[in-house]
Amino acid sequence: VVGIGGGSTMDLAKAVSLMLTNPGSAADYQGWDLIRRPAVYHVGIPTLAGTGAEVSRTTVLTGPEKKLGINSDHTVFDQVVLDPDLLAGVSTEQWFYTGMDCYIHCVESLQGTFLNAFSRAYGEQAMALCRQVFLQDSPDGDEKLMMASYCGGMSIAYSQVGVCHALSYGLSFVLGLHHGIGNCVAFDYLEEFYPEAVEEFRRMMQRHKVNLPRGLTADLPDEKLEKMVDVALVLAPLWENALGPDWREKMTRERIRDLYRRM
Amino acid sequence: VVGIGGGSTMDLAKAVSLMLTNPGSAADYQGWDLIRRPAVYHVGIPTLAGTGAEVSRTTVLTGPEKKLGINSDHTVFDQVVLDPDLLAGVSTEQWFYTGMDCYIHCVESLQGTFLNAFSRAYGEQAMALCRQVFLQDSPDGDEKLMMASYCGGMSIAYSQVGVCHALSYGLSFVLGLHHGIGNCVAFDYLEEFYPEAVEEFRRMMQRHKVNLPRGLTADLPDEKLEKMVDVALVLAPLWENALGPDWREKMTRERIRDLYRRM
Repeated sequence: VVGIGGGSTMDLAKAVSLMLTNPGSAADYQGWDLIRRPAVYHVGIPTLAGTGAEVSRTTVLTGPEKKLGINSDHTVFDQVVLDPDLLAGVSTEQWFYTGMDCYIHCVESLQGTFLNAFSRAYGEQAMALCRQVFLQDSPDGDEKLMMASYCGGMSIAYSQVGVCHALSYGLSFVLGLHHGIGNCVAFDYLEEFYPEAVEEFRRMMQRHKVNLPRGLTADLPDEKLEKMVDVALVLAPLWENALGPDWREKMTRERIRDLYRRM
Repeated sequence: VVGIGGGSTMDLAKAVSLMLTNPGSAADYQGWDLIRRPAVYHVGIPTLAGTGAEVSRTTVLTGPEKKLGINSDHTVFDQVVLDPDLLAGVSTEQWFYTGMDCYIHCVESLQGTFLNAFSRAYGEQAMALCRQVFLQDSPDGDEKLMMASYCGGMSIAYSQVGVCHALSYGLSFVLGLHHGIGNCVAFDYLEEFYPEAVEEFRRMMQRHKVNLPRGLTADLPDEKLEKMVDVALVLAPLWENALGPDWREKMTRERIRDLYRRM
């Protein structure tokens, strides 16, 4: 199975390769280490850079009840082809939103409680490359962004993402937002968790003249807003990484709902 | 096959695992991409950090005529266990010499003509970690050095080492010097090739009170000195990486002999 495309396409390729050798529905395997059998040989060829799906051990899927990944050692691609020429022609906004997925998951990995020396080394290098790409004029920006994406994906292999990704999953599930833009929408309201990074993110947005959509949850029926909170709350490891083992005391339904209401 | 130890031990484990499935003598396969069949499953567990043998696609062997690696995609370990606690108890000198192998091959990779975005990202991160370990007081120095070694090994996966490693191979073949100390002995005379890095290397030596052996080639018979030059000259890709495709015009037997005479 060969996946050529952005994060969703590569994730689909991973999921198909897993489901060819594991019985039942993909929904049965959403979670951590539920896969029993190795996948068929699968190859990832990214045409967008940032998600890290080319190296991550998850394939994020939207099921009937939640948005959650199949996280397993067998999910990882057997082979990856990284060709920066494949980034040519992508629109500035898509390039930015996907790149920010990398930037944001590195912020969350580097500030998380699950961090180890492996995740830190990769996360630091991905951050350095993101800064070169998004805050400087870099002649080989596409190569750098592809490496940033790879390093960012490796960084979360042994650590975890955090508050922004958890909230972003709720936005995607209920509003159908792409993951990259969902991250950006959420991150801009997370100054209390990641103050310096949010400030830097805003400088990156300004530099590339990106305008985020606003007021997304203004007219949302309560029922949908509660569903959004449910989807975010399922992601326990993300909250624990961001806030520690007692995260449930710090991150209540009310607090998540308030955050969503501002978006 | 499980290799637990420093670079030589891990390389031996790689070589044995390759020779269990490929007929003939290991000497037949010294070079680039001569291996035909996958090795048996092999695992590397480093107890020293720096060589990068845990992730490199070579197993360096000393044959009857030369010191050269079996470089192939099948050489790479199937699995690696990185446990910084295994570095406990190593002597300062051995720790330093092995760590400098990483520092030096990153210098050579980053300044080489074969560099690409992948090698650069890994090389930069390995250098940053080496500087933390050898020039600062780092509380988690063993973890960092193990990651530096891993990143340094990845850096040379798609690039190559240079002048110092080529000369070091000659020193090891004729004088039986360990690779790490051979690198340090040679590097100290390579200011004309790597001026800033040699200066930084000397600061690292000073900080850790390391005294290099001197006068190693003073009483060496001509025949042995010529053998040393022969061994170094075999390593064409290293010279080409350091000096470009016309390296034979720049690096004559005489010039190599002069460099060795100073050591």
